[in-house]
Amino acid sequence: MKFFRYRKDNQVLPGVSEGDAHFSLVGHVSDIDRDFFESSDAIAKVEALLKEGKLESIDAPVFDAPIYRPGKIICIGLNYLKHAKESGMEVPKEPVVFFKATSSLCGPNDDVIIPKGSQKSDWEVELAVVIGKKASYVSKEEAMDYVVGYALHNDISEREYQLERGGQWVKGKSCDTFAPLGPYIVTADVVSDPHDLNLWLKLNGEKIQDGNTSDFVFDIPTVISYLSEFMTLEPGDIISTGTPEGVGLGFKPPRFLQPGDVMELGIDGLGTSKQKAVAYPGK
Amino acid sequence: MKFFRYRKDNQVLPGVSEGDAHFSLVGHVSDIDRDFFESSDAIAKVEALLKEGKLESIDAPVFDAPIYRPGKIICIGLNYLKHAKESGMEVPKEPVVFFKATSSLCGPNDDVIIPKGSQKSDWEVELAVVIGKKASYVSKEEAMDYVVGYALHNDISEREYQLERGGQWVKGKSCDTFAPLGPYIVTADVVSDPHDLNLWLKLNGEKIQDGNTSDFVFDIPTVISYLSEFMTLEPGDIISTGTPEGVGLGFKPPRFLQPGDVMELGIDGLGTSKQKAVAYPGK
Repeated sequence: MKFFRYRKDNQVLPGVSEGDAHFSLVGHVSDIDRDFFESSDAIAKVEALLKEGKLESIDAPVFDAPIYRPGKIICIGLNYLKHAKESGMEVPKEPVVFFKATSSLCGPNDDVIIPKGSQKSDWEVELAVVIGKKASYVSKEEAMDYVVGYALHNDISEREYQLERGGQWVKGKSCDTFAPLGPYIVTADVVSDPHDLNLWLKLNGEKIQDGNTSDFVFDIPTVISYLSEFMTLEPGDIISTGTPEGVGLGFKPPRFLQPGDVMELGIDGLGTSKQKAVAYPGK
Repeated sequence: MKFFRYRKDNQVLPGVSEGDAHFSLVGHVSDIDRDFFESSDAIAKVEALLKEGKLESIDAPVFDAPIYRPGKIICIGLNYLKHAKESGMEVPKEPVVFFKATSSLCGPNDDVIIPKGSQKSDWEVELAVVIGKKASYVSKEEAMDYVVGYALHNDISEREYQLERGGQWVKGKSCDTFAPLGPYIVTADVVSDPHDLNLWLKLNGEKIQDGNTSDFVFDIPTVISYLSEFMTLEPGDIISTGTPEGVGLGFKPPRFLQPGDVMELGIDGLGTSKQKAVAYPGK
């Protein structure tokens, strides 16, 4: 199944997709959020509703982010060899971990707002892992039991804020609209091998990121087990697993987002998304 | 007013305090959380209930964290001159910003769990600022209008995880129980000058941190205005403003938490808290 959230009449509503069909979950599920994934039987209930053909189908939903207010957006930095090199950084010995503010989340096809005065906004197509149950000190062997699904994520990054303004990376990762997520959270049972997914990003039609998750420095079980030493992972938490080479920072000279630029991205089986970069609206 | 949350019959319930008296808000307020602070009239309603003497008083509440699931816990690093020096770091030119996982939040008098195998858990008494309304690109002059209240915070930090495990500080800041907050969120109208508050921490009865918020490198309006350039601050978001000198890392040789150690801390007008350090429970 694929869970999503869609906009209608100034509300954001829950939905589920199978094949090419989209169905509303209004009246059955209050939202796609931490409580939904924490519930022991919520997913099974939706599955039953789908099988019974009881759900109202909807056409061409306008997608919001596929999860409401996750507790954390955790990111793994420099998790593809060639991307570490293009960033001028060493390949890490342990996973590099940072957070994005959850307020940066937006719909998969929303405009990405270039922050006021910003010159160095950049793209990063990433596979996001969604946690399904509390994970604390879990082993690599059991780690995949804690994954409920996967999503497409564009980890937008402002490189000056991230690297030239002192301190930690969080400044360049947390602006509003810097986390277009979705369209879907695709349940883990549908993704046959999350370590063999092509992921790509086009800027104004030109493919500039083109990788495969088989190139991870640290694979998903390693990342989950590692993170669970340092914090409890909770249902609905998002782990974004890093980006392959081809970010703007890696070009010579570097290329950054200009108003009007269009990013299109996708991952095998998880769908595609498309964002237009826009200038910060004048106040 | 002082808002708090207390434990009763396996539930966490909202309450309000005035003077030395504590009152239950059950039946009037669903919780002290983002929605509460976002509501335009929630605080005024509680004030009216207090004046009318309509609230049930409670004795010796057992405190939980005074806010439920804040969207962010943002911390300012090295924000007191002498603490930057004791940490062997330069005094920052711009605020150093990092996040704690919101899952690290716990009650003000809960045990602090030393992570499995950890050797370098450390204390940091801090003034936490609670945001009352959405703040994006706000000036220093208007910044204080966005503060709803203040709280006492112990920004527990594992120095090996923070500084020796590669990458960003978040690894050493996010373990469960690493953010004892409260007992109260004290509304801003009651705090006459947040830039002249004594704050202190005792370890096993010995006062080892003893500072005043007048020593901030970056004051509260500067911090709020600065942060609001990089992310939208939302109602209920916590900003922890840094710690004065006297952390374990600064001692020669360094001193770190051992099981059985007791931390007691306080800030003028915001109350006190007390945590015992305990070893990670065996699985």
